[in-house]
Amino acid sequence: MPKKTYTIGIDIGGTKMLAILFDGEKVIEEYILATPKDNVEHFFIMLNALISPLEEKARKNKIKIKGIGLGIAGTINYKEEKILDSPNIPIINNTEIITKLKEITNLPIFLDNDANCFLRAEKHLGAVQKYNNIYGIVIGTGIGGAWWFNNQIYQGAHGGAGEPGSMVINFENGLELEEAYHRLTKNNPALIAHEAYKGNMLAEKTFAELGKDLGFALANIVNILDPEVVVIGGGVSEVSDLFLSHTKKTMAKHIASSESQKIKILKSKLGKRAGAIGAALLVE
Amino acid sequence: MPKKTYTIGIDIGGTKMLAILFDGEKVIEEYILATPKDNVEHFFIMLNALISPLEEKARKNKIKIKGIGLGIAGTINYKEEKILDSPNIPIINNTEIITKLKEITNLPIFLDNDANCFLRAEKHLGAVQKYNNIYGIVIGTGIGGAWWFNNQIYQGAHGGAGEPGSMVINFENGLELEEAYHRLTKNNPALIAHEAYKGNMLAEKTFAELGKDLGFALANIVNILDPEVVVIGGGVSEVSDLFLSHTKKTMAKHIASSESQKIKILKSKLGKRAGAIGAALLVE
Repeated sequence: MPKKTYTIGIDIGGTKMLAILFDGEKVIEEYILATPKDNVEHFFIMLNALISPLEEKARKNKIKIKGIGLGIAGTINYKEEKILDSPNIPIINNTEIITKLKEITNLPIFLDNDANCFLRAEKHLGAVQKYNNIYGIVIGTGIGGAWWFNNQIYQGAHGGAGEPGSMVINFENGLELEEAYHRLTKNNPALIAHEAYKGNMLAEKTFAELGKDLGFALANIVNILDPEVVVIGGGVSEVSDLFLSHTKKTMAKHIASSESQKIKILKSKLGKRAGAIGAALLVE
Repeated sequence: MPKKTYTIGIDIGGTKMLAILFDGEKVIEEYILATPKDNVEHFFIMLNALISPLEEKARKNKIKIKGIGLGIAGTINYKEEKILDSPNIPIINNTEIITKLKEITNLPIFLDNDANCFLRAEKHLGAVQKYNNIYGIVIGTGIGGAWWFNNQIYQGAHGGAGEPGSMVINFENGLELEEAYHRLTKNNPALIAHEAYKGNMLAEKTFAELGKDLGFALANIVNILDPEVVVIGGGVSEVSDLFLSHTKKTMAKHIASSESQKIKILKSKLGKRAGAIGAALLVE
């Protein structure tokens, strides 16, 4: 048996950064910090503050760290290993994050979209292990998506596949899904969920509305991709009892093929850690 | 060299049925008839009226017919070889068209969605031969779509992939793309195109509107599939000078990844015959 190694996975979200030390099966240690928004120097200082104690832990356990995987919300140029556009963390746009982090840590660095990381983790260790045609949607600070097909994450011809947040949802005015989501949840879905659980009817209605919007969006995606299963993750998926029935009802109405209406909708099994685990799994 | 054979391809559209005798490279003979809408018996009589003279021609040329391929607008259950739902030719819904046509002709029969046939033809003999990640959209009586990836037409997990006509384009009211298309073109895009070419400003505006809607729809598709190229076919593609500039402008605005914005938009090379050629190519 080869000697065991650790990997580090970091999920860099619009609100929080979660870093884990991972042994290939389970999380050994984890740290969490708010995502810096002021400048890119601060961003790298905080990133290092997450990585250092994990390196320390590995040293104590006398196990080598093989590399670091990063999952980032935004579009990535996979050829040049650059973040092209991260709408929720604009300070890192066009940053050569891999080169920079290699300098700091002296470790191999891997980079992927956060929704891809989520889906990779759920496929390998989570809710959808037995499927091979899987659409993953992540509802958190923004809305991300990814598609697992033919034993891998589908990247598209230009690395731009799986961007449901940009879906135009009103052809009259060009409104996109993620804009509508921000408006509807006033950039604070957690607070509105809290209100809804306390019985606030307006908050309940907001989630019913969100559920319907997600249903339309997923029906549009199913009518193109026709996957076996959809897996839902991100912070908002944890309050799915507030919206998922509306999502399913709307999907049933707008999926064209009666066969495709049989699609399964599953919730994330790995929860908050899915993105970081999927990032750790990037390390080869 | 193996002895040459012919195949028959029939494109069964919402308005017309076009049947060709095909030698694998070019169309030897073709016939066209209006699609019967009254009852399924009449439908099979007319289908036979298209096939008989092609069989006669093959007999004269002393070349065997290997089989018949059918392209039909609608969703198909590929396992049971049945048409599940053909919105524009409801009389054939749930018809066992393969069994029935085998009885009539004594030939092997193959069945596929008409947009799949269009794309197969354009890939093998038409505008997009050199690409391998191609989205095809057909704008005719309705709006159909298909995706060529990994050396084949992508069918999806339940045979329901590539249905852009069902795309919900207004999340406020659930309006679908094909409904909006019918409303906008009053079910007669050819007449409105004729008016637009005569300088009727209202007709020109209708096509500008259609171009914009197609741009939104294609941006939504590109943000999911990210193909190398989009090929546009169907009757309405022949008047693309009335709308394509609006389509491209709208796509550029709503495709998320700057790399994916480089996508090419090409017009059908095989024109009216693309669907029938793609149906003929089904015969193995």
